[in-house]
Amino acid sequence: MAVFFIFMFSFILSTSYAAVQDFCVADYTAPSSPAGYSCKRPENVTVDDFVYSSLGVAGNTSTITRDAITLASYNEVPALNGLGLSMARVDMAPGAVVPLHTHPGASEIFLLVKGKLIAAFISSDTNTVYQTVINSGDLFVIPKALFHGFVNIGGAKYNPVVAFASYSSESLHIQTVDNSLFNSTLSTEFINRTTFISSHEIRRLKALFGGTN
Amino acid sequence: MAVFFIFMFSFILSTSYAAVQDFCVADYTAPSSPAGYSCKRPENVTVDDFVYSSLGVAGNTSTITRDAITLASYNEVPALNGLGLSMARVDMAPGAVVPLHTHPGASEIFLLVKGKLIAAFISSDTNTVYQTVINSGDLFVIPKALFHGFVNIGGAKYNPVVAFASYSSESLHIQTVDNSLFNSTLSTEFINRTTFISSHEIRRLKALFGGTN
Amino acid sequence: MAVFFIFMFSFILSTSYAAVQDFCVADYTAPSSPAGYSCKRPENVTVDDFVYSSLGVAGNTSTITRDAITLASYNEVPALNGLGLSMARVDMAPGAVVPLHTHPGASEIFLLVKGKLIAAFISSDTNTVYQTVINSGDLFVIPKALFHGFVNIGGAKYNPVVAFASYSSESLHIQTVDNSLFNSTLSTEFINRTTFISSHEIRRLKALFGGTN
Amino acid sequence: MAVFFIFMFSFILSTSYAAVQDFCVADYTAPSSPAGYSCKRPENVTVDDFVYSSLGVAGNTSTITRDAITLASYNEVPALNGLGLSMARVDMAPGAVVPLHTHPGASEIFLLVKGKLIAAFISSDTNTVYQTVINSGDLFVIPKALFHGFVNIGGAKYNPVVAFASYSSESLHIQTVDNSLFNSTLSTEFINRTTFISSHEIRRLKALFGGTN
Amino acid sequence: MAVFFIFMFSFILSTSYAAVQDFCVADYTAPSSPAGYSCKRPENVTVDDFVYSSLGVAGNTSTITRDAITLASYNEVPALNGLGLSMARVDMAPGAVVPLHTHPGASEIFLLVKGKLIAAFISSDTNTVYQTVINSGDLFVIPKALFHGFVNIGGAKYNPVVAFASYSSESLHIQTVDNSLFNSTLSTEFINRTTFISSHEIRRLKALFGGTN
Amino acid sequence: MAVFFIFMFSFILSTSYAAVQDFCVADYTAPSSPAGYSCKRPENVTVDDFVYSSLGVAGNTSTITRDAITLASYNEVPALNGLGLSMARVDMAPGAVVPLHTHPGASEIFLLVKGKLIAAFISSDTNTVYQTVINSGDLFVIPKALFHGFVNIGGAKYNPVVAFASYSSESLHIQTVDNSLFNSTLSTEFINRTTFISSHEIRRLKALFGGTN
Repeated sequence: MAVFFIFMFSFILSTSYAAVQDFCVADYTAPSSPAGYSCKRPENVTVDDFVYSSLGVAGNTSTITRDAITLASYNEVPALNGLGLSMARVDMAPGAVVPLHTHPGASEIFLLVKGKLIAAFISSDTNTVYQTVINSGDLFVIPKALFHGFVNIGGAKYNPVVAFASYSSESLHIQTVDNSLFNSTLSTEFINRTTFISSHEIRRLKALFGGTN
Repeated sequence: MAVFFIFMFSFILSTSYAAVQDFCVADYTAPSSPAGYSCKRPENVTVDDFVYSSLGVAGNTSTITRDAITLASYNEVPALNGLGLSMARVDMAPGAVVPLHTHPGASEIFLLVKGKLIAAFISSDTNTVYQTVINSGDLFVIPKALFHGFVNIGGAKYNPVVAFASYSSESLHIQTVDNSLFNSTLSTEFINRTTFISSHEIRRLKALFGGTN
Repeated sequence: MAVFFIFMFSFILSTSYAAVQDFCVADYTAPSSPAGYSCKRPENVTVDDFVYSSLGVAGNTSTITRDAITLASYNEVPALNGLGLSMARVDMAPGAVVPLHTHPGASEIFLLVKGKLIAAFISSDTNTVYQTVINSGDLFVIPKALFHGFVNIGGAKYNPVVAFASYSSESLHIQTVDNSLFNSTLSTEFINRTTFISSHEIRRLKALFGGTN
Repeated sequence: MAVFFIFMFSFILSTSYAAVQDFCVADYTAPSSPAGYSCKRPENVTVDDFVYSSLGVAGNTSTITRDAITLASYNEVPALNGLGLSMARVDMAPGAVVPLHTHPGASEIFLLVKGKLIAAFISSDTNTVYQTVINSGDLFVIPKALFHGFVNIGGAKYNPVVAFASYSSESLHIQTVDNSLFNSTLSTEFINRTTFISSHEIRRLKALFGGTN
Repeated sequence: MAVFFIFMFSFILSTSYAAVQDFCVADYTAPSSPAGYSCKRPENVTVDDFVYSSLGVAGNTSTITRDAITLASYNEVPALNGLGLSMARVDMAPGAVVPLHTHPGASEIFLLVKGKLIAAFISSDTNTVYQTVINSGDLFVIPKALFHGFVNIGGAKYNPVVAFASYSSESLHIQTVDNSLFNSTLSTEFINRTTFISSHEIRRLKALFGGTN
Repeated sequence: MAVFFIFMFSFILSTSYAAVQDFCVADYTAPSSPAGYSCKRPENVTVDDFVYSSLGVAGNTSTITRDAITLASYNEVPALNGLGLSMARVDMAPGAVVPLHTHPGASEIFLLVKGKLIAAFISSDTNTVYQTVINSGDLFVIPKALFHGFVNIGGAKYNPVVAFASYSSESLHIQTVDNSLFNSTLSTEFINRTTFISSHEIRRLKALFGGTN
């Protein structure tokens, strides 16, 4: 009874300099690769790497869109590195919108916990609009990398809006139409030529969002 | 002005008998493959395929464990087919547990919306326990396919517990220790030999959970 | 000498009803899955399934943008099904643009064979613009799902423009800003609320591109 | 005690027409896809789909190469469909070889159970030869899709040779140099032009292996 | 004849500081990533990185379970890094068991070379038991991450048992029910609450396996 | 209006030491992994990392095969790292061939821009030849890792040949039959035993290509 079968496994692992475990908690100080961040050495991993508290706090909605997106991706939660999954909290004040945007590498489940929204995404190629009204408790699925947005249409009892979104990638990125075009260095002429939006309108929106050129 | 650049794309697509789109909404009546369900033909897809309302309703917690898991996987939400993502709602009555279990092909983010729980998962190989207390607003990350469970330790103000869990696969499966061993046809002798749990205890637990043999 | 080692392999394969080969040539008449089209039965595959001639012919550039995109994806070339690769030919008349667009699931190498273009893509999150002038013989890399576009700036000797683009997916989809917003059924109010483009400008662009609502 | 927590899961699953399980046992009568064969309906799956006995029997080595390869891929073992794994048994008579070949989509571990062999693979690009002598109990790793072969150099006590090979794909294919060139319809001229092997030698080898043209 | 076509490839590769080859042999001294270990520089790779001899030697079965598992994963065989494949040797003394366990990220083919065993795995969700008796020469397929175990039922002529197992991942991990629960720091109360095994039985098993708390 | 919704995203990203972006431009000076090269830090990435000019220049065809392959893989174009895509330019003089070869991890689209060629690939297992004549403007699909080659059969007006090939991997490798066998250190005896090519012919071809042993 003195020898247990776990011992051989442990021995084999301990003779390996850097045994990889069931997870690869991000080491933000080492090089990253196309697969994500380097892994912390197992002996430096603690349970705190797996816990994150910011989605419990409403974001600051005093923005132009009156929404706030609080992320829990592999940039904020080191344990998510390599796991193919992330989340975000969405807060919306009365009259708020989530502006039209895409997530380049992630599908999304948007779960509305409180509120009443118009939700829409647009397919590629055929430009089909999938739009509906969602209420508290509804989820809405947005396939990978497609344009989507939300408009708050709830009255007082539905506000402020709270939603939790899940994403099929730990590497959660956001590309909004507005920021890409009007809060970047893309020139007014290039935008006008490639979108047909008038130069006058582009300049108005750049003034609003902070774009240059 | 009469000819727009979208036309050529549309034409090319329409000459293809079954143009695949940005998504593959499940057709539950056709054969499935290792990649998931067959796709509905695009013309039969509607926005309702992307909406699901059951996570807004508390599950029935009058079970032996006093918890309830309500799933939103590709079995319930056809739009999730192929998207690598699913969710679930967890409800727990006072004193409830989520019994020890694994998800064979999915990592999890467990977001506690209301309640106070002991959360734990166990690594393979080294049997390291990652355990902590989580409160409302905390999320807890569980790497793919590892044993994990939760125990409700909140008082009156923390109950009933509500959590939303996200998974890195649309194909969400649950393997609990108890049901696998004690609510199946696995024989008492096989369980005893491969787990060292006493035959007497196995028979007691089979009576509780419904197992035979 | 009468028995060769290939025989056993052949026998094993022939006893299997539907032996899968090195490829899965699309059968457009059977159900598709998240992994693509069903496979033609091997005995129906011919070398013609692997050949396609349309990229040798200039597309019709008498469009509003004066460009033409001719696709060679798994919708046009059945052998590409499952291979993770597609191509397109891009023709541009003098003064043409390739309007701002994304490919939801594909990275791109744009190889300019003849012409002189401004090429640009925009990163997500930080809205960084990666823009340059490319000449005949240059290739330009566009990471997956990001906004990009091209403007023809060549004189007579650089026109008409010809380019060949390669994509990291057989399922090649195109989502243009203009068609999504202004050639769809997305309502003027929804667009205005989620992009801040003025309703007046939206209505002007819908008239140009064919959008409704 | 009358209601157990398994019940809700079961109910949800049973209301789905074709609940996908933890596996996708091949249905050889339905269409295949790039992801493999269609799945048998769960109620038709039995434990026999997971068992296969042919690797216990020595193959017939009365071939030109005096080796025999017995496959256990998803063509022979329906449960392997979608699991990314297959095996084969290799038997070699005295003086046998495993002729130079590749596995287009699979890496290999070749575990020699009895015998003494020269084992070699060749890298691409630099044409580096990785060659060694392996003995009973040694394994040899062959990275995906590279040329490799074995020559039996054991005396009487090492014969007949038995090895078990594992592959990183359920879709196990074999492309031998000899059969591709000399047991196919590839014309002597094409082979001569693209390999520089003399026409005289090609014709000799075609006569040996069965090639035409 | 003085210039060969290989030269240009070689030149291009040699001007790249760290040309990646067909394989990525593990460098255990550099950081790992979610994709595995860092690669040895190609000039440091030798054929010995591809050879491993430990599966030829019976493991020590003087354990509580009288079995021994000898691994050949990317922790032991550096060439397996990145190849999606590993193996193990299983030895079992008379009366031995392989205790109930899972491999979190890997499917398995268990090939019984000598012996007679009861083999079983349990599906998730429905807790269906797939159990059978396997004999020398039989293989048994275990889908990814499911509970499985083996019991030696052979008489003298079937003993000692030898089996070779193949896995669909180079990162081979083992999570046993017994070690997770009874050879870890998981508290008796937590185990009791989340599995319903009695505290008395848990304490008995902890004494046997070495668990604390 | 003073606070824009982009600010919170930027802030979150900037507090992360090494925020991963939409791409992972290769840093050739840091360790590589099975997923590719390490990423340059985002602040060191410029638009020049996404541009490459060598495919605009004809390669030197004064080789034994009179062809030239100019690569644009992740070894030459750092932005391709992690993107699953590469290209090459193929030049062929009159009478040239592209010798029989495979790409171990990549499918190919071969787009013939000028010329007239015999194109062929060979399937595994059944050794089926897929051969045809392709003309300027035709593309030819070659599934992953299969033998293929081209013979220039055009007259004066079709020469010199120019083609652009696309590959489904950024890690583009080439394994030619000739170089593997006759321009390596593989011994004449090993080649003879494993391919049945006569020793005399092997020695003649080694003299031509540079092989030893």
